[in-house]
Amino acid sequence: MPEAVIAGVGMHKCGRHPGKSFSVMAAEAAVRALDDAGMNFGDIQAVYASHVMQGASAGQAVCQHLGMTGIPVTNVENACASGSTAVRQAFIDVTYGVYESVLVVGFEKMRQGVIGGIGEENTVSAELGLNVMPALYALKANEHMHRYGTTREQMAMVAVKNHLNGCYNPNAHFQKELTVEEVLASRLICDPLRLLECCPTSDGAAAAIVCSERRARRHNPGPFVYVAGAALVSEIYGDDPDVTSRAAKIAYEMAGLGPAEIDLAEVHDAFSIGEILHYESLGFCAPGEGGRLVETGRTAINGDIPVNPSGGLQSRGHPLGMTGVAQVCEVAWQLRGQAGRRQVKGPQTGLTHTQGFGGVCAVTILKR
Amino acid sequence: MPEAVIAGVGMHKCGRHPGKSFSVMAAEAAVRALDDAGMNFGDIQAVYASHVMQGASAGQAVCQHLGMTGIPVTNVENACASGSTAVRQAFIDVTYGVYESVLVVGFEKMRQGVIGGIGEENTVSAELGLNVMPALYALKANEHMHRYGTTREQMAMVAVKNHLNGCYNPNAHFQKELTVEEVLASRLICDPLRLLECCPTSDGAAAAIVCSERRARRHNPGPFVYVAGAALVSEIYGDDPDVTSRAAKIAYEMAGLGPAEIDLAEVHDAFSIGEILHYESLGFCAPGEGGRLVETGRTAINGDIPVNPSGGLQSRGHPLGMTGVAQVCEVAWQLRGQAGRRQVKGPQTGLTHTQGFGGVCAVTILKR
Repeated sequence: MPEAVIAGVGMHKCGRHPGKSFSVMAAEAAVRALDDAGMNFGDIQAVYASHVMQGASAGQAVCQHLGMTGIPVTNVENACASGSTAVRQAFIDVTYGVYESVLVVGFEKMRQGVIGGIGEENTVSAELGLNVMPALYALKANEHMHRYGTTREQMAMVAVKNHLNGCYNPNAHFQKELTVEEVLASRLICDPLRLLECCPTSDGAAAAIVCSERRARRHNPGPFVYVAGAALVSEIYGDDPDVTSRAAKIAYEMAGLGPAEIDLAEVHDAFSIGEILHYESLGFCAPGEGGRLVETGRTAINGDIPVNPSGGLQSRGHPLGMTGVAQVCEVAWQLRGQAGRRQVKGPQTGLTHTQGFGGVCAVTILKR
Repeated sequence: MPEAVIAGVGMHKCGRHPGKSFSVMAAEAAVRALDDAGMNFGDIQAVYASHVMQGASAGQAVCQHLGMTGIPVTNVENACASGSTAVRQAFIDVTYGVYESVLVVGFEKMRQGVIGGIGEENTVSAELGLNVMPALYALKANEHMHRYGTTREQMAMVAVKNHLNGCYNPNAHFQKELTVEEVLASRLICDPLRLLECCPTSDGAAAAIVCSERRARRHNPGPFVYVAGAALVSEIYGDDPDVTSRAAKIAYEMAGLGPAEIDLAEVHDAFSIGEILHYESLGFCAPGEGGRLVETGRTAINGDIPVNPSGGLQSRGHPLGMTGVAQVCEVAWQLRGQAGRRQVKGPQTGLTHTQGFGGVCAVTILKR
């Protein structure tokens, strides 16, 4: 089987961009990824476009800007894991020899305000309010505090760490340092979660070129970032808390690596408690130890397992369809040593993780 | 490469089903397809769910009814070609050995009323009204009438034929014969298109199990319907009229067949003129001869190239994400001789065709 590489990555800065269409933002990200790979759109054999709410044929609208070459374009949606799903699909296609060069482009222009209840109406989850994300994560936070003694301060430290990292990321929505006190003094959204522990509402786009190594070398001498594993799972019971650990297990096995061998990770910190939970599910610490992991600084950029050096969803932002692709961009830049002031020291491996409404979870492992 | 077969198909009747959720309709269709294949959901390795406007993680909501097995579920959207895109993705996965058994489930609960302008705002197409489907097809109809002498009566005959076929399809939205006079006396929607030449607003769901032949035989002695080719293309210039002929060329080459060897077809008759245009693009007749093809009865069930024996989008209905999967169900039933009073005589091959907003087109060829 050919090895799949990330031949190029590109991004459009996260933020609020009312004057710019999603297709222009996405096309800019795609052109940057193509430039990075030394390719042009005519070299691409298929496109996977990830978004959640940009309407019919949004990926085709993006490709109209790139030069219409007639190739298969498929829009892929899996809630917050949409981008990761698209990356995995491209990885499978290249690994199994369907295509040699695939463009993945993830983008979103978010509506104003908080997203309310999502998914089907008249379900038990919706009746219980579990389709409102801050409510769902607040329940998880309360459970973790009760069961393990995790503190509000530890949760706030996730927001503080990720906002500090975002200060060094020009593509992040926010470049603003926060203190634990500021986080805990911000508006209460859903007890115990405060405003500054919730990801903002951001627009943005990211792109990655997934190629066979042979094809990538025709355009670029490398060195390349390899896709070592990619897993996508769904839940096995309602509101299944173990989707992350099951996806991670599959991805680790594909990559032949364990959590101790991961040098950095971009994980789904839509809410501060999420990052703490995911530390545990991804195997970076034992169950219940997530709060301590952030408190001791081990997940900071200079820690032993840096998490969300990009700023994560909290500070880079969370344009839904973009996120999984943006994580791959960040890990690629980190593994290539191109992450500027937020560079992790000499990473050889990196992991991305997204988790979405409906019990979907995706984990991807990249290596040098 | 393993040959991909349609191991089972199932459908939920088209119509207006206000009391039923999309996920229940889709799960019913999936269970019928599984029963038809002699399989249960635990035998399925991956799911592609096609829909356009059912919200985030709709496919995951369907799988919650089927028994949560944790497998990869991916939502796929390509406007009116969503279902065909999902079928093609499953075909590729099975043919390249990614999976041995894939469930494709296409569904849609449509909103009330006509869909207005779709796609991005502030584009040239939107300014010209070309994102309103009846307007776009009305322009094509006027051009065809002007250039080739195609008549309003010939276009009405498409609606008459497809509504007659729908009378024999218990899954069709309508079981009602029409006359040319009734069609031409119905309300003008966009000159020259009349109400009864436009597909209705329908809810519905369809499912197909795509397997390697070896895997299908473990559950079912056959005989099976084989997927001989599947193509997905995008446009090569704005409002490209040739997407169908390019998709067909690829699918014909994959199948090693030409249009003269196709025994029946399910094509995208969202508007009467569409079917006439597609006759020509698919190679069933010469350019300009489409009006004559329907007028002479050659595309009737007992004609030499029956088109839309199911009733097509006009009479079966057009729940967007369902349509491409529903077409595969119909061709499978026809090739297996199970189409009841609408059975085409002894077909060995069949073609499906969908075309969607944004210049997307998919053609699939099935054979016994």
